[in-house]
Amino acid sequence: MQPEVKVRVLEDQRAVYGDHEMRLLEAIARRGTLSDGATALGLSYRSAWGKIKAMEAALGTRLVASTVGGSGGGSSRLTEPAQRLLAQYVRFRTALGEYAQQEFERCFNDDTGELV
Amino acid sequence: MQPEVKVRVLEDQRAVYGDHEMRLLEAIARRGTLSDGATALGLSYRSAWGKIKAMEAALGTRLVASTVGGSGGGSSRLTEPAQRLLAQYVRFRTALGEYAQQEFERCFNDDTGELV
Repeated sequence: MQPEVKVRVLEDQRAVYGDHEMRLLEAIARRGTLSDGATALGLSYRSAWGKIKAMEAALGTRLVASTVGGSGGGSSRLTEPAQRLLAQYVRFRTALGEYAQQEFERCFNDDTGELV
Repeated sequence: MQPEVKVRVLEDQRAVYGDHEMRLLEAIARRGTLSDGATALGLSYRSAWGKIKAMEAALGTRLVASTVGGSGGGSSRLTEPAQRLLAQYVRFRTALGEYAQQEFERCFNDDTGELV
């Protein structure tokens, strides 16, 4: 048995971003375009674009900067605030995942040695 | 901003139980019948019963014991293994929620003082 943790970040009870959105930012940074980042997550371009725009609106800052056309086609990169947000989130998320694993083992094995 | 954490517990990649199922056990214990426990969570009796049976099958142990009829109608109570499982889960889940809150603040406020 092991715990699976999912996280969303809320503002006034509304989800602003979470694991899924951060994976999208990561994929865009890695693949170099919004389109390829979306594909990597099995999202349509339109859906990925919508998620980015909703996050940008909620956070009040630009997260993805795109250049259109050129010899190699368009490209997208994360803005500096998006890079910082992603780095902070990854730090938080990694620590949380590790803690969940450790704490789960501690709580379920301490007294009985068995789950139930 | 604040993190919202959801947990499921997996065995071989399959969810065995999680926040929702533990809330159901808690509601059954509090209300005294499966039917009232289900209602408290906005579930149908059939759906709640199915969740309990699926958990019992996956864990290989009885979780809810019911008595039928009598002057006050039937009642349900958690078995001893279910009480232990719920107590362990609540301990784990409370610690995880507190850690998430603390770690979120630490990761997002340490260097910039702002989210992005």
